[in-house]
Amino acid sequence: MINTGGWLTEESFHQKYSMGFKVKAHLHTEQTKYQKIDVYETESVGRMLLLDGKTMVSDKDEFVYHEVVSHIPYMVSRSCKKVLIIGGGDGGVVREFVKHPDIERVDLVEIDERVIEVSKKYFPDCTSGLSDPRVRVLPEDGFAFIKRAKAEYDIIVVDSTDPVDFASGLFTDEFYQDVYNALTEEGIMMNQTENPFLDEWGIKNIYNNMRKVFPQVYSFNAPMLIYPGVYWTFGFSSKKYRPTDLNPDKLQHMNSLERSLKWYNMDWHRGTFSISNFHKKMIGQV
Amino acid sequence: MINTGGWLTEESFHQKYSMGFKVKAHLHTEQTKYQKIDVYETESVGRMLLLDGKTMVSDKDEFVYHEVVSHIPYMVSRSCKKVLIIGGGDGGVVREFVKHPDIERVDLVEIDERVIEVSKKYFPDCTSGLSDPRVRVLPEDGFAFIKRAKAEYDIIVVDSTDPVDFASGLFTDEFYQDVYNALTEEGIMMNQTENPFLDEWGIKNIYNNMRKVFPQVYSFNAPMLIYPGVYWTFGFSSKKYRPTDLNPDKLQHMNSLERSLKWYNMDWHRGTFSISNFHKKMIGQV
Repeated sequence: MINTGGWLTEESFHQKYSMGFKVKAHLHTEQTKYQKIDVYETESVGRMLLLDGKTMVSDKDEFVYHEVVSHIPYMVSRSCKKVLIIGGGDGGVVREFVKHPDIERVDLVEIDERVIEVSKKYFPDCTSGLSDPRVRVLPEDGFAFIKRAKAEYDIIVVDSTDPVDFASGLFTDEFYQDVYNALTEEGIMMNQTENPFLDEWGIKNIYNNMRKVFPQVYSFNAPMLIYPGVYWTFGFSSKKYRPTDLNPDKLQHMNSLERSLKWYNMDWHRGTFSISNFHKKMIGQV
Repeated sequence: MINTGGWLTEESFHQKYSMGFKVKAHLHTEQTKYQKIDVYETESVGRMLLLDGKTMVSDKDEFVYHEVVSHIPYMVSRSCKKVLIIGGGDGGVVREFVKHPDIERVDLVEIDERVIEVSKKYFPDCTSGLSDPRVRVLPEDGFAFIKRAKAEYDIIVVDSTDPVDFASGLFTDEFYQDVYNALTEEGIMMNQTENPFLDEWGIKNIYNNMRKVFPQVYSFNAPMLIYPGVYWTFGFSSKKYRPTDLNPDKLQHMNSLERSLKWYNMDWHRGTFSISNFHKKMIGQV
């Protein structure tokens, strides 16, 4: 991340491709016990949160990521009482899950409490769900937390950064096995799985690891303007249901809710798992 | 487009967002009667063609654009004898259409013959279809050409640059009316319609203009890694058929062909028109 001539630039971790955002102001910077947190005001994407120089959340596109990783598994799940989010201290995923009245508990495990506090100040819309009485914010290490949980959660969202440094552990089959064990017998895991144009080897490896553990592994994409290469892939791993098996009992609820959503609708949900030859090849499906 | 420290950078035409590609070599540069042509060898996307500093074609992602604007309308058309491509001197769209044996004629109208010659030298795979006996390369002004054609083409692809300078004329309702008149009574127009995250006003305007002329206007997206913002939208405008009305007589042919394609498959085709709430809003559909 370099700041030259008012441009904030992130290079992909392969350092061959970069994105730049015209900056208005550097609103916040701090070094926590775990990482460096920065908040910028930009001309192109509004406010933007960075962790160790990597773009995480922006006003412009946060709704895409947060809506797709929450409403897709919710609509497939038959019963969805308890949800776990690992990472995701910005609160955006929580905000989406608490839109569903039948969900009884949302646990957010975020190791760095400062991410939550900085997000509350600069991204109040993202964190608006954290005050819901069904939400528990747990400032713990996700790796340790997931090992203790057994057959407890209906949906687990792994809201991770790139598979480098300590986050690389969130892309191993050992970790996926822990997630599997923490899920109920119809449980679903959602995770972000990088950009296939820029990370061909990595993404194949991620999906191979998911397939070692889950009987049903699918992939879809949604654009994340502030992530390198924008074409972002996500994984849907399930013990039982396929991602296009929408729960008929929830159709009426979502029919009404989806009018207020910015990205998700059920028509898009049903279509997005019909992936291109390129996408299939990159995840090792052909 | 700036070249600093071995990085080639393109800013979006709103100059708030940029992309950078690590450069290995500057292979070609020339000023033609119409524009500046450059070819770079990059580390991230292989060879890349630029016109007036704007990224046009790269080895890495050219197949996406070229396959989607050709095979989608081909599969919807009931009879497809004659195809017109306006612009597209790199030849990639032609290469895809000539994969269909029932097409009798492909006319490529490209005002700048130098684009074709430079592409032949540096992108031989893209231009490989130009030697097909069914192809006519016409070095003419697309605006003048389209005004003369009447009820002649089954598919017209407008392979344009951004709606700035002289290319802005390719996004007006006057031009779309000329395309409409040049199409047969079941004709289909395909065009690229920019990135909605970066060009909210422009894209609504483009779709409004298309709707003034065509009874059926639809939109989908496919990623173009070298275009600003990557999430790229395309228009499907038709006199009769909807984009998911695949021609049953062509299913067997495509079933066999799609195995050799890099992006397109019929399953993706059927799903990609199920667009998100964001996409609908940006094209003025809701």
